Amino acid sequence: MQAEIITIGDEILIGQILDSNSKFIATELNKIGVSVYQITSIQDDKKHILEALKNAQSKADIVILTGGLGPTKDDITKLTLAEYFNDTLILNDEIVEHIKTMFAKVNYPFTEVNKNQGLLPSSCTPLFNTVGTAPGMWFENNKKVVVSLPGVPFEMKTLMSLSVLPKIQQTFKLPYILHKTILTYGMGESIVAERIEDWENNLPNFIKLAYLPSFGNVRLRLTAKGISKEILENSIKVEVVKLQNIISDIIIGFEENETIEVSIGLLLKEKQQTIAIAESCTGGSICKRITAIPGASNYFIGGVIAYNASVKINELSVDKRLIDEFSVVSCQVAEAMAKGIQQKYQTTYAIATTGNAGPTTDDTDTTVGTVFIAVATPAAVYSEEFFFGKPREKVIERATNKALEMIRKEILKN
Amino acid sequence: MQAEIITIGDEILIGQILDSNSKFIATELNKIGVSVYQITSIQDDKKHILEALKNAQSKADIVILTGGLGPTKDDITKLTLAEYFNDTLILNDEIVEHIKTMFAKVNYPFTEVNKNQGLLPSSCTPLFNTVGTAPGMWFENNKKVVVSLPGVPFEMKTLMSLSVLPKIQQTFKLPYILHKTILTYGMGESIVAERIEDWENNLPNFIKLAYLPSFGNVRLRLTAKGISKEILENSIKVEVVKLQNIISDIIIGFEENETIEVSIGLLLKEKQQTIAIAESCTGGSICKRITAIPGASNYFIGGVIAYNASVKINELSVDKRLIDEFSVVSCQVAEAMAKGIQQKYQTTYAIATTGNAGPTTDDTDTTVGTVFIAVATPAAVYSEEFFFGKPREKVIERATNKALEMIRKEILKN
Repeated sequence: MQAEIITIGDEILIGQILDSNSKFIATELNKIGVSVYQITSIQDDKKHILEALKNAQSKADIVILTGGLGPTKDDITKLTLAEYFNDTLILNDEIVEHIKTMFAKVNYPFTEVNKNQGLLPSSCTPLFNTVGTAPGMWFENNKKVVVSLPGVPFEMKTLMSLSVLPKIQQTFKLPYILHKTILTYGMGESIVAERIEDWENNLPNFIKLAYLPSFGNVRLRLTAKGISKEILENSIKVEVVKLQNIISDIIIGFEENETIEVSIGLLLKEKQQTIAIAESCTGGSICKRITAIPGASNYFIGGVIAYNASVKINELSVDKRLIDEFSVVSCQVAEAMAKGIQQKYQTTYAIATTGNAGPTTDDTDTTVGTVFIAVATPAAVYSEEFFFGKPREKVIERATNKALEMIRKEILKN
Repeated sequence: MQAEIITIGDEILIGQILDSNSKFIATELNKIGVSVYQITSIQDDKKHILEALKNAQSKADIVILTGGLGPTKDDITKLTLAEYFNDTLILNDEIVEHIKTMFAKVNYPFTEVNKNQGLLPSSCTPLFNTVGTAPGMWFENNKKVVVSLPGVPFEMKTLMSLSVLPKIQQTFKLPYILHKTILTYGMGESIVAERIEDWENNLPNFIKLAYLPSFGNVRLRLTAKGISKEILENSIKVEVVKLQNIISDIIIGFEENETIEVSIGLLLKEKQQTIAIAESCTGGSICKRITAIPGASNYFIGGVIAYNASVKINELSVDKRLIDEFSVVSCQVAEAMAKGIQQKYQTTYAIATTGNAGPTTDDTDTTVGTVFIAVATPAAVYSEEFFFGKPREKVIERATNKALEMIRKEILKN
């Protein structure tokens, strides 16, 4: 089963926005066993739309268009679809009523322009938009499907999930698909690949492996395709156990949306332990990641962004002589910061960063990209020196990822 | 002058990554006066590449392909380009030497597989890749150009900037293009549009306006196209002055990469003033934004992430009775936090947040989405109550944007 995605509108072609709609649609189609053959971004222009549609239908069973369904005159998708299917627009009273209700809710005046959104090609099945005014459209002929969706991401996503994906599953006989995500942390894609090479080569042919690297972690996604749900489930289970035996040290979770900060939160809650964070060069980035998780207040007591040396001395009890002797960017100062906040906030663990994120060497002589990360545990404090290169945002991001990795390892030990 | 961008590879089609390469190329082409007619993402498959190339060349003067140039057998772009141009691959010694040097630098063994990267269609002009191993290729015939670039974003961007854009400008007679960005803050796109409607409608026909909304701000980009640089420059100047007269209250800068945190930094440096930040519900997000700017240590003294009530009391001198009487999520506590950190860190300004980012109401009864933001100035402290809805990450992001907007206004006054 092949699909093509067509996005209509100039915003992508002038480089104004990233085409995140296509990414969402492609991900969701792949999950239910539909491959995406091509993604095409085109202008809001009748000739161009007609041509792209014809091209797409010559190869794909399913064509999904997004964009070009707004109330203004620029949006000509609907008229073009009517022309393509040799059809005419008719007013759909149900849709008009729905739009009126939507406008009334937010006290917007309903105008003739808005009424036009209820005009739809007569041959389409309207897809009700419960979160916006532009309805989606489903066309079906000769066992081929064309779907048109609004371009507003939230509306498109809602229509995809509630209408389009179920309708595709009803219309086409699709294989059963099972996904399992394994989240690894702290190793690059190529090293992970090397460690699991034998296992990967011996996967049954109905199970595919994808590497999804991002932000210091690599997600491994197993996709099994077949007709028996039971066989797929069992096979995936067997393969995950085998994998755990090979890389247990870097696996941190199995949820699709799991991140290292989620994993840290679960561990701390389970162990009823707490954490505090003292950040210099990372400037709040570690605190932000930890507090992004709902319920972080159960284990995260607080943090100090000790940017100025005076804050390190006064708030974290770092001995000024350490700074004078070793400079603020040193393992001695990182460890003193971690100990300082651990004692002050009375937490099980603390983590501290000090470094030079660049672009200039500032008041210390430290090379740009050098970061010291210290971890304080109930028993000890230790630190490591890292060199995270440049530019500034990468240094901060890498230091944050490494700090989270270090603290997670420490929590696991205790 | 029309271009088409073709990205080759499965990562985009399975929804694994966003097509950020196309966004970059489209932006850069538009800047030099080349319109992008279509962006097409296709599989790493010979037949598909040939077909997409033919289609693209039938409409576009310039076709830029990215991806499919790695050393492994999956990457068949080069062979396909040779076939398309009825050409053969020959070994380019200069390129091979360059790759050897790149490998030696990082102590990687140079293998036969890597040598293959030096094989190029004989008719192309190789584009030297100074930051990677895969060279770019420039094909020119019948006044039409096909360019092939590696898919690694950093390598693609370097080749675009150093080789492709200058070569396009040499090869084609392009109009003169002038861009001017005006950054506005604190108002939504539709409200900005309403305020400047008359001005926009009266723009000369060679000046186009684009709205680029993101993260609480709207960038207005004026693009003038013509043959006289002088006329364009003068006209843009005139229009910007007119615009300033209409929306001076929301314009915060004119640099393409300017953000509100950059603007705050420039103001504080100029006035030789300082700031400290106390964050509860925003959890480090404001500190992170402020410290993302190089040189922030000149004006940002430090911050406290006061997640637990004990930190608010002990570190920020918030009176426990205020918390008991009004709850931690209150204007009284927000103001006490701001005053507390301003006094402790001895800064000109302080900003504080306390609220409930959700998803649950936690230990207070406050509605999810409620946030109090307080600003302390040399003369006073005040706060405002906001309702930022949900989900959690949006509450945090909106509160952060609003806090930055409030503090910037305050700095401007003093």
